[in-house]
Amino acid sequence: MRVELINTGSELLLGFTVNTHANYIARQLSDIGLRLVRQTTVADDRAEMRACVAEALTRSDIVLITGGLGPTSDDFTREVVAELIGCEMHRDESVVAQITERYRQRGLKLREQILVQAQIPVGAKVLANLHGTAPGLFFEHVGKQIFLLPGPPRELYPMFESQVLPRLPHRDRLDCRVFKVARLPESTIEQLVAPALADLPELELGYCARMGEVEVRVIAAPATAAEAERRIRAALSENIFGTHDDRLEEVVVKTLGTAGQTIATAESCTGGLIANRLTNVSGASEVFPAGYVTYSNESKIRLLGVREETLKSSGAVSEETCRQMAEGARQCAGVDFAVSATGIAGPTGGTAEKPVGLVFIGLATAAGTIVERHHFLLDRETFKQLVSTYALDAVRRELLVGRTLTGSRDSLTK
Amino acid sequence: MRVELINTGSELLLGFTVNTHANYIARQLSDIGLRLVRQTTVADDRAEMRACVAEALTRSDIVLITGGLGPTSDDFTREVVAELIGCEMHRDESVVAQITERYRQRGLKLREQILVQAQIPVGAKVLANLHGTAPGLFFEHVGKQIFLLPGPPRELYPMFESQVLPRLPHRDRLDCRVFKVARLPESTIEQLVAPALADLPELELGYCARMGEVEVRVIAAPATAAEAERRIRAALSENIFGTHDDRLEEVVVKTLGTAGQTIATAESCTGGLIANRLTNVSGASEVFPAGYVTYSNESKIRLLGVREETLKSSGAVSEETCRQMAEGARQCAGVDFAVSATGIAGPTGGTAEKPVGLVFIGLATAAGTIVERHHFLLDRETFKQLVSTYALDAVRRELLVGRTLTGSRDSLTK
Repeated sequence: MRVELINTGSELLLGFTVNTHANYIARQLSDIGLRLVRQTTVADDRAEMRACVAEALTRSDIVLITGGLGPTSDDFTREVVAELIGCEMHRDESVVAQITERYRQRGLKLREQILVQAQIPVGAKVLANLHGTAPGLFFEHVGKQIFLLPGPPRELYPMFESQVLPRLPHRDRLDCRVFKVARLPESTIEQLVAPALADLPELELGYCARMGEVEVRVIAAPATAAEAERRIRAALSENIFGTHDDRLEEVVVKTLGTAGQTIATAESCTGGLIANRLTNVSGASEVFPAGYVTYSNESKIRLLGVREETLKSSGAVSEETCRQMAEGARQCAGVDFAVSATGIAGPTGGTAEKPVGLVFIGLATAAGTIVERHHFLLDRETFKQLVSTYALDAVRRELLVGRTLTGSRDSLTK
Repeated sequence: MRVELINTGSELLLGFTVNTHANYIARQLSDIGLRLVRQTTVADDRAEMRACVAEALTRSDIVLITGGLGPTSDDFTREVVAELIGCEMHRDESVVAQITERYRQRGLKLREQILVQAQIPVGAKVLANLHGTAPGLFFEHVGKQIFLLPGPPRELYPMFESQVLPRLPHRDRLDCRVFKVARLPESTIEQLVAPALADLPELELGYCARMGEVEVRVIAAPATAAEAERRIRAALSENIFGTHDDRLEEVVVKTLGTAGQTIATAESCTGGLIANRLTNVSGASEVFPAGYVTYSNESKIRLLGVREETLKSSGAVSEETCRQMAEGARQCAGVDFAVSATGIAGPTGGTAEKPVGLVFIGLATAAGTIVERHHFLLDRETFKQLVSTYALDAVRRELLVGRTLTGSRDSLTK
């Protein structure tokens, strides 16, 4: 069963856009026991695209094509494929109705050009697009399956999961299990995990590190994968915050919700990123009433009650300011927990004593306040991401562990 | 002059590694007037790779192949290509010497298996690898150029720049110019741009839409590209916020900085994203003292001075609340501008009167306050991204246009 992917789009061959579709689709396929044998990127050029699709059809059973379904002049995937397999085009009134309704809801004027997306090859099945105007298309042609899918990820992903996967053949799959850990380096995790799995046969073990998180991945027959999971959970214990596509902010919001507890944020160097991650989770409003982005000293004083003399004596990037930020936010917002972050994201603003990358992360609770000191030498955005991950994971660990640390807490600075 | 790229490596087809080589190589080629017509990723499988290279050689003049040059069992690009074009392999003593010296310098023991990398097809030219053991290879075969290049970026990049580029034909380079627009849909932009460019010869025009932004791209000979730019700027005027890699938040922070003006944010539905985007820009602290993430009604009242009776009579998602949020933030933070956003990000929380996707975006200035009403039917994160883009672009436009709208402003709700 040969599966190929063709990505169309000149922007992919000009060096402006990284192709992330191949990754997404490969992972989806592996869930149903299929693997990509080839992926091709082709420019928005009719002859080139036609040749490329024709070749793929001669050698593969399933051909997935992304992009070129929109309303502009460089969108012609629909026509190229229809011509290639010898279909006429017709206007599909159900697609016209769907596009019209979408425009009506959004109060936009519908121009005729938009309806070119309702031109459907005869014999093709329409895959409804719930997140855009261009429908996907599905053909069965001389025993082969051909899928035409929209390029924008937010349109492609839901369509792939709800309408492509169910139409593909499913094979015996190997279990792929992924465990996610924040705050521990990859090599430490490997030291904990690899010896525990050494005697398991035919197990593929992998690690993938990305910005404060590490994914541990095992691929094996289901019984072996289950045993590997048992051992990995024993080895890593509460360090695991989730599996597969779990996101740390989601775990934090859900855990707070279940515990009936609330949180506020007091952000200097992360500049709203912690709040932004929390509010990416549906239901955040139940647990997150308010966040403070206090970039200036004055706003730290006015919004969070940080003491002016602290800022003068210790500076904005200091353990004491961080502590007062967290405690101020907890009090002002009337919540159970508050996290704070103050540091030097760079690239400028560092000194010999307080270099770029220095950061304090605070967590205020009913039982007291913890402040951690870290030094992350990274570009600005990666620095912010890492600090926000450490802060969110501090909340998650606190929620898990409860009040067991009470007492020592007030003086604890790692 | 057709140029193709083949990337080998099963990891690229399993969904764990994003292919960034294509982007790098495409940008390098464009500097010497060449373009990739196709890019293919192929698994570490001899038959598949052989077929893939053979096909590329039938249709293209230059074939660049990356990966599979190392010493392990899945590295066989060298052999596959040699076999395909009918070359014997021989051991190249200069490569043996180079690898041996590299191991000696690093104090590593050289195993025989490593020297498989010194097996060179007869007639191939060795491209020295200064950052690893696997040399690159260059063939000229029936008038075509074939390059075999190492996969690791830190080996590939310097080899490409010092040894591949000088061997490639240099063409008159085409200018690629990109213009970025926020808030206008792709089809509207095409209506404005395409007719203005219709009579320009040999001009490639493309559009790429992503979450509230559209890139307009022209590629042509330098004189034509310059004329196209003039016309595009005339057609789109202040709708263009930047070119190429410009980011909207960067333009806003820089423009505020130049004007010596400051901004605050008052965010409900965007939950800190606008602040986060602003603070991704180095130098944000000069123009952005404070942001308010006011998810609850109570925090809107306490932090921003929104009136309780407004929240009761009009609700949190209303023009009036949005106006008071922006004006409250402007006053509390003592800044020149404040943007606010309140809406229903979904997926829950909508009503018949105020459906999911409804959002108000406010901009308070010394001259008055504008509130816009929009309806974006999107998933939660895309909704937040789009609202933040509209808000940031509102600031940018205000900074450009200055006070020309004064007077009508207080009552203006689009």
